[in-house]
Amino acid sequence: VADSRFFRKDGPFTLAALAAACGGELQDKGKADLLIDDVAPLDSAGPGQISFLDNKKYVEQFTQSRAAACLAHPDMAERAPAGMALILCQDPYRAYAMVAARFYPPSPLRPGIHAAAHVDASAKVAAGCQIDAGAVIGGNAEIGADTHVAANAVIGDGVVIGGHCRIGAGCTISHAILGSRVHIHPGVRIGQDGFGFAMGPAGHLKVPQLGRVVVHDDVEIGANSTIDRGAGPDTVIGAGSRIDKLVQIGHNVQLGRGCVLVSQTGISGSTKLGDFVITAGQAGLTGHLTIGSGARIAAQAGVMRDVAPGETVGGSPAVPVTQWLRQSAILGQLAQKKGR
Amino acid sequence: VADSRFFRKDGPFTLAALAAACGGELQDKGKADLLIDDVAPLDSAGPGQISFLDNKKYVEQFTQSRAAACLAHPDMAERAPAGMALILCQDPYRAYAMVAARFYPPSPLRPGIHAAAHVDASAKVAAGCQIDAGAVIGGNAEIGADTHVAANAVIGDGVVIGGHCRIGAGCTISHAILGSRVHIHPGVRIGQDGFGFAMGPAGHLKVPQLGRVVVHDDVEIGANSTIDRGAGPDTVIGAGSRIDKLVQIGHNVQLGRGCVLVSQTGISGSTKLGDFVITAGQAGLTGHLTIGSGARIAAQAGVMRDVAPGETVGGSPAVPVTQWLRQSAILGQLAQKKGR
Amino acid sequence: VADSRFFRKDGPFTLAALAAACGGELQDKGKADLLIDDVAPLDSAGPGQISFLDNKKYVEQFTQSRAAACLAHPDMAERAPAGMALILCQDPYRAYAMVAARFYPPSPLRPGIHAAAHVDASAKVAAGCQIDAGAVIGGNAEIGADTHVAANAVIGDGVVIGGHCRIGAGCTISHAILGSRVHIHPGVRIGQDGFGFAMGPAGHLKVPQLGRVVVHDDVEIGANSTIDRGAGPDTVIGAGSRIDKLVQIGHNVQLGRGCVLVSQTGISGSTKLGDFVITAGQAGLTGHLTIGSGARIAAQAGVMRDVAPGETVGGSPAVPVTQWLRQSAILGQLAQKKGR
Repeated sequence: VADSRFFRKDGPFTLAALAAACGGELQDKGKADLLIDDVAPLDSAGPGQISFLDNKKYVEQFTQSRAAACLAHPDMAERAPAGMALILCQDPYRAYAMVAARFYPPSPLRPGIHAAAHVDASAKVAAGCQIDAGAVIGGNAEIGADTHVAANAVIGDGVVIGGHCRIGAGCTISHAILGSRVHIHPGVRIGQDGFGFAMGPAGHLKVPQLGRVVVHDDVEIGANSTIDRGAGPDTVIGAGSRIDKLVQIGHNVQLGRGCVLVSQTGISGSTKLGDFVITAGQAGLTGHLTIGSGARIAAQAGVMRDVAPGETVGGSPAVPVTQWLRQSAILGQLAQKKGR
Repeated sequence: VADSRFFRKDGPFTLAALAAACGGELQDKGKADLLIDDVAPLDSAGPGQISFLDNKKYVEQFTQSRAAACLAHPDMAERAPAGMALILCQDPYRAYAMVAARFYPPSPLRPGIHAAAHVDASAKVAAGCQIDAGAVIGGNAEIGADTHVAANAVIGDGVVIGGHCRIGAGCTISHAILGSRVHIHPGVRIGQDGFGFAMGPAGHLKVPQLGRVVVHDDVEIGANSTIDRGAGPDTVIGAGSRIDKLVQIGHNVQLGRGCVLVSQTGISGSTKLGDFVITAGQAGLTGHLTIGSGARIAAQAGVMRDVAPGETVGGSPAVPVTQWLRQSAILGQLAQKKGR
Repeated sequence: VADSRFFRKDGPFTLAALAAACGGELQDKGKADLLIDDVAPLDSAGPGQISFLDNKKYVEQFTQSRAAACLAHPDMAERAPAGMALILCQDPYRAYAMVAARFYPPSPLRPGIHAAAHVDASAKVAAGCQIDAGAVIGGNAEIGADTHVAANAVIGDGVVIGGHCRIGAGCTISHAILGSRVHIHPGVRIGQDGFGFAMGPAGHLKVPQLGRVVVHDDVEIGANSTIDRGAGPDTVIGAGSRIDKLVQIGHNVQLGRGCVLVSQTGISGSTKLGDFVITAGQAGLTGHLTIGSGARIAAQAGVMRDVAPGETVGGSPAVPVTQWLRQSAILGQLAQKKGR
């Protein structure tokens, strides 16, 4: 299915191997040796292909699918068409991620420093790294093993990057310490000055920004997002957090573990998020707030006060989500009355 | 008028030549040989210069303008000052675009591959291309004739780019197929991973993103915008679409022909737009929606449901625009009552 | 305090020297020779360190701080703990900026053009400039004295940049004239085409963008922001203005002196701001508006009409801020009634 110009496919694999890869259970052990060659969506999958059912909206497609095999929840087993082999699992989407990664593993690195890369003599680049053309690595920077620094990326003096990281083309990183398995997309900006100055009619006076950006392990930061370094304390991105495209994170912001920030979110200076906070697209948070673990912020919400752990808020200014929905409903009713 | 450090001016041209260039009609054939040397706004144009009247707000300026010539709708002819030559046309702004392009054509390319560009030996670069310093072109990539790849742009392995394209400085393109006459601004990111993972308390597991970005002919994509590749299906940008700056387009999104997305718009995964859809600035669309052809989305609208062809919506959550305006009016009235 | 991998510290300085640096007054002249070695926050500062009190929220921390010295307003002097030396000043945050800059001055440039920079033979680079690896400087460009052009930045043909500027890594500048002491962050895009075309069912026809971007002295432009050049008139950024990250400024926009645009603000074409206008995060302004000097635009506001000098507006569509707050309050009350 995937374009071979961009993706290298492994396989085929037996159904048993795929069940093992995703921790699922073969419904029919007799099919353990069935060879599967690729992943595909329910509606286009055919012989030799495996699909997944994760959303009840697609049960109809499931019942009519010609996929050779499917990842599905045990509750759905009886709806499967005749002849379809099933791998039963509690979370079929997660299982699909593991199976798809088996067929399409990340491209192996081509270790080495390109002749047109510019690595300062005092920088330390560990074994197995791939440093592409035009990449610039500053003085005393440290790059961990098996990390990829793509073309035209710029790593500033003293920056530390862990092992197995992917640093995208054309991004810039300064004043930062990154953990392992961090994935930085192209065009990301990390470590520039925060927006700190003493305002006044005689001019706005820059306040030196003396902190860093600390990015923990297994973080992904999407294309063209910007993360400012701290003003004195650090800006911190907790382990496993996922940041989408065009997100802005101000100085001193702290994200806990596993936070998910959807694209175009903006978080102002010194706001602290707990673990597993989710902000939907274009959400905005003002500065110096505390957002509890597990909180959810709706799309385009404008958050101007603290949010309790587990709370869901929406609207601008943001209020608890049930109140926001009621407000929208009332407004609609008033407008309809007036429209008559 | 235009700064000669940045713009090379052609001309002068006769009024007849300019009328032919824009498909307009000379009001006074006796002025066919009048020489025109430049374009200029109504309020500053003088002898030898041509202007245009497109907006009734500027009729006063028109009647007092000292421009030698003007592009105007036939209905406006009688308001012209004495001595002003007119080229009559149905769409004076469009005519202006053609006349201005006559005076200020795009700079011709300087074909060749700069000694400091890095073009993989397996890449195919067609005749007439200009590849600037620091540009990187990956393995098996294909660049069509007369395309410009500006400085420090990075074109990934296998990417296909058509002819007469302009690829801006410092942008990055991977996993993508581009048509002809596509204009990519500086800093654009095309083809990076979509925001797809299986969420869970044990960590968010990446789902391999196995699709591409397909950009059809005559598309323009503004500076620092980001277009993610598909998760399995492709992300598609229809022919002639115009995307402004800092726009985010998620995986699997499909745009029809001639769509216009104003700056800071965000479109979440798998949403489909028909032809000639317009989204104003900072509009946000959630995922898996269908937006009909000719629909219009107001600035800052938050669209959370399908939009019918030709419908105009506004507000967050978005509602039909007349309802949104009524809501705003009612809210204003209530607040005024309370304020008393 | 600051990580020595990224920041070079000067000092120690006497208290008298620091008072002189910020224009403050020593409360106890007998402590003029006290040596101070670093800045630190109130709650962590200790012997040899100076802190500041700017916000009444932190008076408690102030009274318990073990900082050797503190910058404070005279009104706060009597709340200081015993043994703390005070530098009295009217604006302690501004004074802190000056003191911190004394300890952490900008890194001195390493003048010279890197062997892997690409400077056109016709470009003029003044004395004292540092041009890093991969930077590209076009034909007839002019770079003033003591300016830093960081790695992989691209300066287009004819661009003029003043003295003592900092041009960030990976940014692109074309069709632009910059003053002195301008600070451009990484990834900024200046001078690309504005979003101008004649729309129509036969396709959207590009209108040549014939203006420039003019950036006056002492401006700061944040990472990944985009500033389009004018369509005919120039786009102008007034002296001392501060632009945060991911801000979009359309063609022909004019900013007066000292404007402050917080991150993800968007300003559409031809809108004019007076002096010292503030737009908070994610604010959006439509085109062709006039925003008076000293006006303030709340976060996420959607401004669709002119704003008077000194006026504060909020909401979308934006209204005077008091009305916006009343609207939000009323909506909350109606929703609570309904909720019962």
